[in-house]
Amino acid sequence: MDTLAQRLYEEFVKIPLIDPHSHINPHAPVAKSLNDILGYHYYTELAHSAGLPKDKIETNQGFDQIEQLATHLGHLRNTVQYSWLVELASTFFGFEAEEVTPENARRLFDAAESTLAKSDWVETVFEKTRLEGIFLTNDFDDPLEGFDTKRYIPCLRTDELVFKLGEESVRNRFEASSGESASTIASLKKGIGALFERFTARGARACAISLPPDFAPMRPAESEASRALDKVIQGDASPEEARTLSNAVFFMLADYCEEFTLPFDLMIGVIRGVYADGVFQGQDLFDRRTSLHQYHRLFNEKKAVTFPISVLTSNQNQELVAFSWIFPNVTTNGHWWYSNIPAYIETDLRARIEAVPINKQIGYYSDAYKLEFVLPKFNMYRRCLSRVLANDYVLARGWSEERAIGLARQILRGNVETMFPGR
Amino acid sequence: MDTLAQRLYEEFVKIPLIDPHSHINPHAPVAKSLNDILGYHYYTELAHSAGLPKDKIETNQGFDQIEQLATHLGHLRNTVQYSWLVELASTFFGFEAEEVTPENARRLFDAAESTLAKSDWVETVFEKTRLEGIFLTNDFDDPLEGFDTKRYIPCLRTDELVFKLGEESVRNRFEASSGESASTIASLKKGIGALFERFTARGARACAISLPPDFAPMRPAESEASRALDKVIQGDASPEEARTLSNAVFFMLADYCEEFTLPFDLMIGVIRGVYADGVFQGQDLFDRRTSLHQYHRLFNEKKAVTFPISVLTSNQNQELVAFSWIFPNVTTNGHWWYSNIPAYIETDLRARIEAVPINKQIGYYSDAYKLEFVLPKFNMYRRCLSRVLANDYVLARGWSEERAIGLARQILRGNVETMFPGR
Amino acid sequence: MDTLAQRLYEEFVKIPLIDPHSHINPHAPVAKSLNDILGYHYYTELAHSAGLPKDKIETNQGFDQIEQLATHLGHLRNTVQYSWLVELASTFFGFEAEEVTPENARRLFDAAESTLAKSDWVETVFEKTRLEGIFLTNDFDDPLEGFDTKRYIPCLRTDELVFKLGEESVRNRFEASSGESASTIASLKKGIGALFERFTARGARACAISLPPDFAPMRPAESEASRALDKVIQGDASPEEARTLSNAVFFMLADYCEEFTLPFDLMIGVIRGVYADGVFQGQDLFDRRTSLHQYHRLFNEKKAVTFPISVLTSNQNQELVAFSWIFPNVTTNGHWWYSNIPAYIETDLRARIEAVPINKQIGYYSDAYKLEFVLPKFNMYRRCLSRVLANDYVLARGWSEERAIGLARQILRGNVETMFPGR
Repeated sequence: MDTLAQRLYEEFVKIPLIDPHSHINPHAPVAKSLNDILGYHYYTELAHSAGLPKDKIETNQGFDQIEQLATHLGHLRNTVQYSWLVELASTFFGFEAEEVTPENARRLFDAAESTLAKSDWVETVFEKTRLEGIFLTNDFDDPLEGFDTKRYIPCLRTDELVFKLGEESVRNRFEASSGESASTIASLKKGIGALFERFTARGARACAISLPPDFAPMRPAESEASRALDKVIQGDASPEEARTLSNAVFFMLADYCEEFTLPFDLMIGVIRGVYADGVFQGQDLFDRRTSLHQYHRLFNEKKAVTFPISVLTSNQNQELVAFSWIFPNVTTNGHWWYSNIPAYIETDLRARIEAVPINKQIGYYSDAYKLEFVLPKFNMYRRCLSRVLANDYVLARGWSEERAIGLARQILRGNVETMFPGR
Repeated sequence: MDTLAQRLYEEFVKIPLIDPHSHINPHAPVAKSLNDILGYHYYTELAHSAGLPKDKIETNQGFDQIEQLATHLGHLRNTVQYSWLVELASTFFGFEAEEVTPENARRLFDAAESTLAKSDWVETVFEKTRLEGIFLTNDFDDPLEGFDTKRYIPCLRTDELVFKLGEESVRNRFEASSGESASTIASLKKGIGALFERFTARGARACAISLPPDFAPMRPAESEASRALDKVIQGDASPEEARTLSNAVFFMLADYCEEFTLPFDLMIGVIRGVYADGVFQGQDLFDRRTSLHQYHRLFNEKKAVTFPISVLTSNQNQELVAFSWIFPNVTTNGHWWYSNIPAYIETDLRARIEAVPINKQIGYYSDAYKLEFVLPKFNMYRRCLSRVLANDYVLARGWSEERAIGLARQILRGNVETMFPGR
Repeated sequence: MDTLAQRLYEEFVKIPLIDPHSHINPHAPVAKSLNDILGYHYYTELAHSAGLPKDKIETNQGFDQIEQLATHLGHLRNTVQYSWLVELASTFFGFEAEEVTPENARRLFDAAESTLAKSDWVETVFEKTRLEGIFLTNDFDDPLEGFDTKRYIPCLRTDELVFKLGEESVRNRFEASSGESASTIASLKKGIGALFERFTARGARACAISLPPDFAPMRPAESEASRALDKVIQGDASPEEARTLSNAVFFMLADYCEEFTLPFDLMIGVIRGVYADGVFQGQDLFDRRTSLHQYHRLFNEKKAVTFPISVLTSNQNQELVAFSWIFPNVTTNGHWWYSNIPAYIETDLRARIEAVPINKQIGYYSDAYKLEFVLPKFNMYRRCLSRVLANDYVLARGWSEERAIGLARQILRGNVETMFPGR
């Protein structure tokens, strides 16, 4: 990086973080061993893609698993995901090799082992990461007990409610957690209200869902919704009926987001299980033929709800920019999954900064499963941000560095607080 | 900007302009007050998007409106549209603050007031902008009287003819302006011929239309078109019948463009009124799922007509590049609306310059409603152009600066004259 | 180029090439005159697009044709295709002018004439290009005789088998070359097996096909396939029946690719004959609305087949990156046709290097019809690669230059040998 971008980057690193989306388990927030690091789906799916059979990855444990993965990590040395690993190993485990190889994997494994055993490890990670809080992804029936909800901020994840009510186990969990049956539209609605009540009482600051590319929300008539629910429960719903029920529940959620003033995170574009024999969490892909125009009814109807939106493809970023520029309730949210690489982050970020009001942009979230990944992933983003602000603002527009840093502070931290205020 | 790009930019600024697309009113070409500047839809829609209620924007007048807008301009300080405002205020009103704030808005308002009151203001703007002529957007019934058509060049805008014949007021205006009834296909055709006659007699140099993303022109049989027109006039046309009539009129326009040797500007991709409660002119968006392949019949059939094409999304730029590279009658035209930001201009421009014959590229048009915006908008484009030519031609290919400047002159000015020659 | 990128580029140029896709005729691999150079469809279609009538291009021969083309080459001076011509003329013909003009065209024609007459010209081109082998595109009935298949590597092109069995001449050629009738599914299958036998016996290292954007492979039942074949032969197949037959043959090919361990090159997205009156080979375009998700059944079913994939649009590159990152049998292959310009190569390359295992990437192929084009086209790619590796790896990630060169060697050469190993 050139000197100016480097200087900005060093300032950005000092800004304390609240990470607005992750999959952290608050009861086990950090890695227990290197397996929790190298077992992150990015490494298992890329190693599998590079040629390592799935069973070599998934039936091994402990150092045996690491040893297998290490045979294929060389094929990933070019990837940005690999660079997270190297930075993580250096920052947290004092492991300074340029690459992780079959020869040095044992050394890394041991270094991780001894570091992760430290009793204050969670605190150390929070401090080194300058992390002050992190949003979770909680199942609707999560009891939300036994952790500090100021630090680990609950977020109601709703994919199962919208897409999985056909599974009896989901309906049973709904009943157990909400006190209401999932068998009628009225009781569903009441039960979902109870979930919102419980989540917001425990400090939840968002409702979230991931959606397939062909989802086009349209509120069904209640009678239609009832018929669809009956069919889904009987297990003989047509695709249209299943979609009708999804729509009905989706709009219930939107209604409650309005009532409880919760932002509704939409993560748009994923198709689950495209590669059914892939490794765990390495099976989902997409069809890029999708449009935010599919959501125009929702955005028009639910004007009082903020929709922080993540798009799966960089192709869709211009729609996100344009819809956020026009609709007051549509906002940009991070760089998701297949778009979470510098080539797409920088392209997408540049357009967002140039055309979306700055108070409507959430710069980044880690999406991490273990706290150790928050730092290298945010650093990747901060490097992108420093290049964009250095070139397009300080150099091209003549902004002072202070002004650029102020802008970075707002999208890295300030907006997380104003856009997800909690109740 | 680095020194080389800066040097090129300074040369580009000296090239006198003919702006090939705008919404200038030739009877009121410049702003009357700062409201005409800050009332540009970019500022009102972005301020609304950033949180300012529509009624605060649209019910206020004079400084009251400015005061309201100023409360939200800080949220837009990152946007490129804001940078036009700052450059405009500095260039034309001598206002040198880095930002427009609630504190200094009065000072800017007053500076604008006294400047805009000058009797030679129109001439001053033309001179400072090095502007020699500017294309208008004229309704089909515009009398085209009372202005200098060498300076303000008429352009026949045809959206209403293609999409709004169902409105009685449009049919009445058609009858009044063309002398023909809109009630039969034959009289429609005759009347449209009369409009072309009148427009070209007054120096029109283009016919233009904006089109929705699902438009796929196909010439209907005359009998079908007649039936469709009857249904549209009766007000009970199906969507297919309405589309048939649109197609019939669209091909009439293409036929007359051939007969009168007028280029037919196609502006592809907009959906009107997506956010129906948005501010004035801030309601239109798009669905990016559209293809230039939808136009293959038109391009094949009307080989004698030049189609300067604007695409609404950067996603579609590669199609525009490829179709312009293959079809002699398809050409590239500026950077439109949601693609009119440097992040997309540079990306799209780079591909166009690398693969489309240079005599088929219109670099830029301002799309401005008031002349004061021509300069800052063209400057944004010229900065993009200078970076692309500096990096990709002077540095990467070893071109001399003179050669790069020659290329810029052609797409900034020369091609406007050769591609829109007038009759 | 800056010094670092230049230094890398100079190293990349030294890496000996095996070009994994071309249209070279092994019996006439080099140009016979400048007409074979300027007759490349890029120049004829761009000159036609720039205004030169088709008949001026296609009815002239010898210097007359060159003279015509030279009148329009100035309009192409900006294009990257023109830069190949200038580099080719300088490298191979010692022609040092900055542009090819009507004034100097004779001089270039003569220089080409005398150079191309040299008896060792083929060897000279191989040497100057550091070319060790080049893949061909062979019709299914190519006898594959009379050339060195180590140098000119056969590749079975299958578009005709999948899409043209309705043509009697194709069926006759199939019969003559395979010894089997094309009249039943069983004999088709047997005959295709014979073709694979013959091709692999002659050293074929890939099977290849180009596909329209709406192709979505799905294996039909054998009875359906039989009915469809009958209808196609009778000449009264519906579009669905024709597609069923295409699917049946396509899956036969995939089955044989598995049996013969041949990679199956898929080149996705082209529509043939969109501009029917275009010059030879200058008629094909595309509809960008296509998705790799259309291939999910194929990728899941044929896990043992490697699919090197070329996409026609940069829009689709992110899908290619994501599918190659998840599916072990999906790999990236070069930068095809309308995406083969630096603006798209650099964008697409950057994302591929950041997220696809490096052992699954084929950097580039020339697609050339004459050997003289291999060098300037690969040089264009190597310049893109040097900029990406200089900026994103050596500067941004702190890689040593040696490490970057190793990565380049793998995607420029090493992977061609491991991914297309031959039988």
